[in-house]
Amino acid sequence: MLVVGAGLIGTSVALALRERGHPVWLADVSAVHLHQAHSLGAGDVHAGEPVDVTVVAVPPGSTAQVVAAQIQEHDRGTVTDTASIKRAVQDEVRRLLGDPSHSTPTEAAHVPRYVGGHPLAGRERGGPHRAHPAMFAGRAWVLTPGPDASSESLDDARWLATECGATPVTMTAEEHDHALAVTSHLPQFVASALAARLAMQPDAVLQLVGQALRDMTRIAAADPSLWVDIATGNAGPLADAIDGLTSSLQEVAVALRSVPPDADPIRHLIEAGGAGYSRLPGKHGGSPRSYHIVPVVVPDQPGQLARLLADAAASGANVEDLRVEHAPGLPVGLIELFVGPESAHALRTALTHRGWTLTDEPAAP
Amino acid sequence: MLVVGAGLIGTSVALALRERGHPVWLADVSAVHLHQAHSLGAGDVHAGEPVDVTVVAVPPGSTAQVVAAQIQEHDRGTVTDTASIKRAVQDEVRRLLGDPSHSTPTEAAHVPRYVGGHPLAGRERGGPHRAHPAMFAGRAWVLTPGPDASSESLDDARWLATECGATPVTMTAEEHDHALAVTSHLPQFVASALAARLAMQPDAVLQLVGQALRDMTRIAAADPSLWVDIATGNAGPLADAIDGLTSSLQEVAVALRSVPPDADPIRHLIEAGGAGYSRLPGKHGGSPRSYHIVPVVVPDQPGQLARLLADAAASGANVEDLRVEHAPGLPVGLIELFVGPESAHALRTALTHRGWTLTDEPAAP
Repeated sequence: MLVVGAGLIGTSVALALRERGHPVWLADVSAVHLHQAHSLGAGDVHAGEPVDVTVVAVPPGSTAQVVAAQIQEHDRGTVTDTASIKRAVQDEVRRLLGDPSHSTPTEAAHVPRYVGGHPLAGRERGGPHRAHPAMFAGRAWVLTPGPDASSESLDDARWLATECGATPVTMTAEEHDHALAVTSHLPQFVASALAARLAMQPDAVLQLVGQALRDMTRIAAADPSLWVDIATGNAGPLADAIDGLTSSLQEVAVALRSVPPDADPIRHLIEAGGAGYSRLPGKHGGSPRSYHIVPVVVPDQPGQLARLLADAAASGANVEDLRVEHAPGLPVGLIELFVGPESAHALRTALTHRGWTLTDEPAAP
Repeated sequence: MLVVGAGLIGTSVALALRERGHPVWLADVSAVHLHQAHSLGAGDVHAGEPVDVTVVAVPPGSTAQVVAAQIQEHDRGTVTDTASIKRAVQDEVRRLLGDPSHSTPTEAAHVPRYVGGHPLAGRERGGPHRAHPAMFAGRAWVLTPGPDASSESLDDARWLATECGATPVTMTAEEHDHALAVTSHLPQFVASALAARLAMQPDAVLQLVGQALRDMTRIAAADPSLWVDIATGNAGPLADAIDGLTSSLQEVAVALRSVPPDADPIRHLIEAGGAGYSRLPGKHGGSPRSYHIVPVVVPDQPGQLARLLADAAASGANVEDLRVEHAPGLPVGLIELFVGPESAHALRTALTHRGWTLTDEPAAP
C-alpha cells in the first residue's frame, strides 16, 4: 500500500490503514510533510518497494499527472486517487498514457489499473498534523471506474474505502461530476457570492445578519487555489448548474420589476424549493423522524451551554440532535434540543425546574 | 396596550407584556385565534377600551391597511407594527391617511403617531399555540420612524421592544429594507433556488448531499404566500440584490466556458467571499473568539448524543458551542464541540477515556 501525497487526506488514509494493521509506504514532494506523516505513525518512506495499491492524494490539478506517473512506475497493482473532480482526471490519465496520435481521450489508452475515487470527507485543507484515522468513518467514498477498469482494480478500490471505514458508492465519472456540481461546487460559489455581498454593506447591516445567512456562508472562508482547480476541472457541469440557478433567480427579479410585481414566479420558486428540500434524505438516510424541539434561551456567560447539557443529560431525556443559534450583538442565544416525543415533556419539566427559560416550539427543520 | 393580530408574533408580544404586568387587549379577524390567545393568558378581547400603544401583527400584505384603520379608530396613542417590510408599509399608511389628491406618498399625510417596527424573531409562521413570552428575548427589534414620527411615539415603540426583552435598533425604512434584502430576503430565494435544483436530481445524487448544502437549504421549506408578500413589498431592493448575486455568479460561469477556462474571476469570487465572511460579527457581536474544536464520531444509536453531552459535562470542560453534522445514509454522525483553549486537552482526554472516537480538528468556522 503506497500513499502519494502526505497531506490531510493522504495521511488520514495511511493512518486508517495502519490502524487496521496494513503496511503503508509514503511519498510526497514535500520532505516536511513526509517527515510529519512518518512521525505520526502513518508509515515508512517509500524506497521502491513493490505495492499492490497506490492512492494518489494530491491537489486536483496535479492528480492526473501523478496517477499516470504511478501507473508507469509500477508494472502491476491498482492506482486510485482522492480528487474531488473525476472526468477531467480520467481523461487526462488516458491522454498521458495513450498514443499521442490519438486526438480524443476515449480513443486514448485503456487504463485497466486506474479507478477514480473521491472520499466525501468534507475538509480538503490542512496538513498531515490534522490527519486522523477516523476521518472517513461513516462517509461515502465515491468510486468512478472507467469502462476499461478491471474488476480486480475496482475490488482493490472498494477494499481501500471499506478499510478506511467509508461506504463505497460506484458511479461513472460523469455522474460524479454532475452530482458534485450541484451538491458541492455550486453551493461553494453561492456561499462565496452571498458572503461577497456582505463585504459591501455598512456595519449596521452586519448586525442584522441572522442564523440563516450565517449557515449559508459558513463555507465562504475557502481556499481560492483549491477552488480554481475544482471549478476549472469541472467547468461544464458547474457552469450549467450556475446557469440554472441564476435563471431561476432572474425570473424572480424580472417578476419583481414588472409593474405591478408578478406574484406567480415568486410563488413558484418558493414552492419548487420546498419540493426539492423535501427530497433530502432524513438524518442518516431514513425517513425524517418526527422530533419534538425544546428551545432554550441561554445567557451569554461562560459555561452556560455546559450547564444546560448537564441538566439535559441528568433529566434522562434522549437528546437526539441539537442546534445552537447565536444572536450576534445580543446577550443571549437560543439552543434547540431535539428529542423523541416520549422525552419532550420530561425534559421541559426538568429544565424549567432548573430555572431555564424555554421559548416557542418551532417546526422541525 | 392593544395587539391586533393574535398569531405567533402578536400573541408572543402580548404574553411578554402580560408577564411584565401590563394590561393587554387583543383583536383578530379570526375568532379561533382570538380565543386561543385569550385562553393562553395573552389578554382580554378588546371592546373599545382606550389604548396608549397599538401593535399591528398581521401579514405584511395587510399591515398598512390595518395600521391606517387603527390610527383612524383611536384619536390618540402610538401605532406600531411587526411586518418584515417597512418602506412599502410606511408609504401605504401615508397614502391611505392622506389627501387622495396628493399623488406621491411623500406629499401625503403626516402620521406622527406611526412608528414602523420589525422584531427579528426568526419564525413568522404558526398560530398562537406556538407563541411564547421569551420569543424576543435578546433579539434585535428594528424601529423605522418616518421623518414626521413624534419623539413620544418613538419612545413608545422603544418601550414596547424593551419590555419584550428585545434590543431596539433605529434606522430609516429604506435602510431597513435594503439591509433585509441582503440579510434575509435574498438568502431565502437563494435557498429556495438551490433546493429547487435538488428536485431535478436522480436519487443517487441526493445521497451525496453534505452538510454545507443542508445548511444552505434549511429555510427552503417556507410559506409561499408569506414570501410573495415580503418580496413584492420589497421589490426594488430585492431585485437589486438578486441582480448583484447573479452577475457575480455569471462572471464565474463565463470564465468556466472560456477556452481555456479563465482562473481569475473564479479566484476573485472565492477571495471576495472570504473577505465578506470575515466581516460577520463573531458570536454575540464580539470579535470572534478562538475556540478549539473537538470533533467526535457518534454512532447512530438512540441516546448517544445524550451520553456524549453527559460525558462532556462531567469532564468539567466549558462547551461553548456545538455543531451536529449528519452523514445521510450512513451509520454515524460527527459532533463538533467548541471549547476554550484551556478546556480542549481535558475534554479530549476525558472523552477518549470514555471510549469516544475523536477525529481531526478542523479550522474554526
